[in-house]
Amino acid sequence: MTIADLGEFGLIAAIAARLPGGGRTLVGIGDDAAVLATPDGRVVATTDLLVEGRHFRRDWSSAAEIGGKAAAQNLADVAAMGATPVALLVGFAVPGGLPVAWAEELFSGIAAECARAGATVAGGDVVAAGTITLAITALGDLAGREPVTRTGARPGDVLAVNGVLGHAAAGLDLLRAGLDRPAALTAAHRWPRPPYAAGPAAAALGATAMIDISDGLVQDTGHLAAGSGVEVSIDTALLPAGPDLAAAVSALASAGAAGPGGEPGARQPLTWILTGGEDHALAATFPAGTSLPADWTVIGRIRGGRGVRVDGQSFHGPAGWNHFRD
Amino acid sequence: MTIADLGEFGLIAAIAARLPGGGRTLVGIGDDAAVLATPDGRVVATTDLLVEGRHFRRDWSSAAEIGGKAAAQNLADVAAMGATPVALLVGFAVPGGLPVAWAEELFSGIAAECARAGATVAGGDVVAAGTITLAITALGDLAGREPVTRTGARPGDVLAVNGVLGHAAAGLDLLRAGLDRPAALTAAHRWPRPPYAAGPAAAALGATAMIDISDGLVQDTGHLAAGSGVEVSIDTALLPAGPDLAAAVSALASAGAAGPGGEPGARQPLTWILTGGEDHALAATFPAGTSLPADWTVIGRIRGGRGVRVDGQSFHGPAGWNHFRD
Repeated sequence: MTIADLGEFGLIAAIAARLPGGGRTLVGIGDDAAVLATPDGRVVATTDLLVEGRHFRRDWSSAAEIGGKAAAQNLADVAAMGATPVALLVGFAVPGGLPVAWAEELFSGIAAECARAGATVAGGDVVAAGTITLAITALGDLAGREPVTRTGARPGDVLAVNGVLGHAAAGLDLLRAGLDRPAALTAAHRWPRPPYAAGPAAAALGATAMIDISDGLVQDTGHLAAGSGVEVSIDTALLPAGPDLAAAVSALASAGAAGPGGEPGARQPLTWILTGGEDHALAATFPAGTSLPADWTVIGRIRGGRGVRVDGQSFHGPAGWNHFRD
Repeated sequence: MTIADLGEFGLIAAIAARLPGGGRTLVGIGDDAAVLATPDGRVVATTDLLVEGRHFRRDWSSAAEIGGKAAAQNLADVAAMGATPVALLVGFAVPGGLPVAWAEELFSGIAAECARAGATVAGGDVVAAGTITLAITALGDLAGREPVTRTGARPGDVLAVNGVLGHAAAGLDLLRAGLDRPAALTAAHRWPRPPYAAGPAAAALGATAMIDISDGLVQDTGHLAAGSGVEVSIDTALLPAGPDLAAAVSALASAGAAGPGGEPGARQPLTWILTGGEDHALAATFPAGTSLPADWTVIGRIRGGRGVRVDGQSFHGPAGWNHFRD
């Protein structure tokens, strides 16, 4: 059965049947608009577009993985403001010839990731198009906390991360080389697991600035440096690495493929850690002396100045993702 | 200068320069997410996707018209819940070869329509894609009113509309036939002007149900009938018509083109009024005896039963827009 067979309203009904309601959804799918409880009196809102062939590939990822990842990247942006995710709206542009089962699995993945984050799917839109496109909007509630923006970092603050770095990028390089292991890395590319609860927790710990690492640690902390008018100083000796990234370097070398970041001969995971996006770790700054829980790793410090320095040097490696270059 | 020349962050800066901030935007463009004041403690949220070649044509509409129309259809959905529009988020997928000036004009149109509705553009996303796609999310505040859904119409209520009916559809038929007049109709197709203030006003007047007419009066009031478990009875003698629609029928006949709705030989505007979408008039039901201001026109009544009847008959004319049929 294809989507064209089912028609717009049949497709909406099939999708809605996969989506639990409840939570903070006061009016859900099926009216002109959704109504959500955001008792703080402020709402956090972010949107992303994902286009097949540019942001996902159906031959590399299942429909559930594509949906889960699309949801994750938006929910992570809400967490990065210090807010609790409440709901998603999902715009879905789709060729009429696509099987209904693929769409149902996509929304099952979206619903699963929403459940991880404590959110629901409250509404959306389906339209016909030649290319599968997902437009996801995530909404969140601050529960009385002040939003943690990119502008509050101050010299003397520590820089810490919560979540993995470079795993999704290593997974992408493995998939490009036709490799499927280490499985934790290809899984990280297909369906990242952002640390949602760490966002509101960081706000409660007194974070001065915070950002979601979507385009790469150097590039994204560069936005934080620019927004706050400070220098971000990263100490590579403190960066979390782990055995999987080293195993991925070896696997690529054995396969005769280019190393991290597509660099011929590269033999260290550092490029992935510094420039790999899509893990959706959180990077936050805290006043010196803040007692941080174990899931935060201090990786550097904020100084007077501008830009990002890595081990005291300007960073000249590959930048993060430029959406109009590839 | 093309968008690829400017790059992602240059494009965002160029767009942001066209967008006034302020209003209820507490954190705007340039952070992980926007933060908006929605003091009611509930937020109204809706999203739509628009794809070039399916929802708009660059040879029929200017960039400002495309942006204004895209904003209007989302802002109207917020008003149809009885809420006041607060902000839009705009996802913009765009080929790198498109001129920057086109994108700037698109966002000028979006900003102008936001200003009509009292809203601002608070955030968004830009990505590269082969086809121009707009993903617009609108957010609104209820200001203490209960949302007006599709489910509250009761037998004995009157059905009333606010705004024009059939103008955008007539304009589309004129453009398809290569005609540009009556200009009010082609303008209505290119940039509809929904009556935003009428939504919250209807809620304050005690509307029992309300819907935005986006797919056609019969189809959309059919959703209201289904949602409320009632029959919608429309009296065509009460429908607002006006001289422009009659002039459009004549112009199409003189040009040897098909009549309203593409029907050969059709010589009455009624098809446009009953089935034409995209004007974004509001249809609402009110308890009998409600004193309605002059901008509302009573066009029928709610009865026990189901479905929509037009002059007492089941309606067998062309349905409204089916997004997967064309």
